[in-house]
Amino acid sequence: MSVLIVGSTALDSIKTPKAENPRLLGGSASHAAVAASFFGPVKLVGVVGEDFPRQYLRLYRRQGIDLGGLQLLPGKTFHWSGEYEANMNNRRTLLTELGVFEKFNPELPKAYQAAPFVLLANIAPALQHHVLDQMRRPRFVAADTMDLWLRVALADLLKLLKRLDAFVLNDSEARQLTGEDNLLAAFKQIHRLGPKYVVIKQGSHGSVLSGPRGLFLCPAYPLRRVVDPTGAGDSFVGGMMGYLAAARGPIERHIRRAMTYGSVVASFCCEGFGLQRTTRVNRAQIEARVKELERLTRF
Amino acid sequence: MSVLIVGSTALDSIKTPKAENPRLLGGSASHAAVAASFFGPVKLVGVVGEDFPRQYLRLYRRQGIDLGGLQLLPGKTFHWSGEYEANMNNRRTLLTELGVFEKFNPELPKAYQAAPFVLLANIAPALQHHVLDQMRRPRFVAADTMDLWLRVALADLLKLLKRLDAFVLNDSEARQLTGEDNLLAAFKQIHRLGPKYVVIKQGSHGSVLSGPRGLFLCPAYPLRRVVDPTGAGDSFVGGMMGYLAAARGPIERHIRRAMTYGSVVASFCCEGFGLQRTTRVNRAQIEARVKELERLTRF
Repeated sequence: MSVLIVGSTALDSIKTPKAENPRLLGGSASHAAVAASFFGPVKLVGVVGEDFPRQYLRLYRRQGIDLGGLQLLPGKTFHWSGEYEANMNNRRTLLTELGVFEKFNPELPKAYQAAPFVLLANIAPALQHHVLDQMRRPRFVAADTMDLWLRVALADLLKLLKRLDAFVLNDSEARQLTGEDNLLAAFKQIHRLGPKYVVIKQGSHGSVLSGPRGLFLCPAYPLRRVVDPTGAGDSFVGGMMGYLAAARGPIERHIRRAMTYGSVVASFCCEGFGLQRTTRVNRAQIEARVKELERLTRF
Repeated sequence: MSVLIVGSTALDSIKTPKAENPRLLGGSASHAAVAASFFGPVKLVGVVGEDFPRQYLRLYRRQGIDLGGLQLLPGKTFHWSGEYEANMNNRRTLLTELGVFEKFNPELPKAYQAAPFVLLANIAPALQHHVLDQMRRPRFVAADTMDLWLRVALADLLKLLKRLDAFVLNDSEARQLTGEDNLLAAFKQIHRLGPKYVVIKQGSHGSVLSGPRGLFLCPAYPLRRVVDPTGAGDSFVGGMMGYLAAARGPIERHIRRAMTYGSVVASFCCEGFGLQRTTRVNRAQIEARVKELERLTRF
């Protein structure tokens, strides 16, 4: 089954202590869509400007991503620039030029409205609502978010939580939302806000799922070298949703394995700038790391 | 087989935002010995002063711990006092009174010198050396350490590493020792310093083993409430060594499971002040949490 993914489509200029790469393909929807594309059909909803490089459109297409929902507007593509410290955990934003993203109004093509799986990747909660308003009874809806929306659009986000099957956020966002340092206490509070499944991401420590059958401690694949972690969280949730959409049978049966696949795609994402490594990976390499994660966690 | 454990035996006065508990039984050797005692015979090497409460001696004995190597010296027992912040991760030391610990010279009773498993719990590296000097060809030697020794006794510690089978340290100590943020790079460097097995502890994120058969990602048991994390790392390594000493066959076959048992004992440690919770636990409760960790990590 296909997964519809809405979020930001951007150009990322990324600086690390070792290199500087301008105008890479980036944005939450780009990372999530490429990650999901390994498992089945993906429909992308986003907006780009006239400066968006054609090669990036070709790249989406090579991954088999349906671009029927990608708007091309007069003006410039959303441009983000950031710099990482040597530990690759701390980063600071150098520049944010919203461009056409400021006017983004995600209108879904007819063919998109029946997609059974929906991933509302990181984007303003009002836009996430607007996408859901156009959907015809999707089977499974997941959303990601970021600290900014917890500060400036909390009411919208809280309303959104009631419409989700799964909510994915990172540990500092979970603390920000619930005021709880304890993971289990945070899960409890977030479930009360609506979602049946809550996933808290912990960066290189992996992620934790809380669902009807309890917790799952999802490992991160240990990497020798982190080149650029931008988009790792989006790759994780994209891979998870792509795997879930391709699997048959109940969500509960597949969600743990889906997270593990997401975790592996995120590991590839970190090994290159932007989407450079992820787009050179094949399914067999993903399977090999999933198998390795099984070995690394068995006792 | 029995495990010999040397380290500090102390009185801990611990303050958290919710409670204050003076003069609890503490110290690296106390926590490690109690943790190891669930799995088989333990020989304790340490020093206490005249003020050491008799009830704590009874407590050791109730756990079946051999006290033939526990010295009683004129003077006061090592007294440490610390205060935790609300998140239970950051703590500051309020007071350190070394007392008789300053004169500690671990002399092993004859019966101790043939112990096949040796745990050099956190204590000055010179004393860890002195214990090893008295041992007759132990089968497996592990050591823990702390940031202080990396600063003030690095040369001793580096010499010690060549005499170890396993070295256990936490992630910030690994960074301090190797200058590496990347876990795999840190492992590589530490192996070069001697130990065949290296375990890096990551607090509530679990721990990672690097050994001849590669990595093992050991989970931490998720807790609803952390009451007092003091001694959790000592409990972890104590439980691991206790389990290993009790298991038959090659180390490699058991070390992953041993770490998981250590992790579970550490989880109980965090649920009470000092050793209050750990000493009320039975083997069946430990087994139940190990089984649960299996469920929580399977995908």
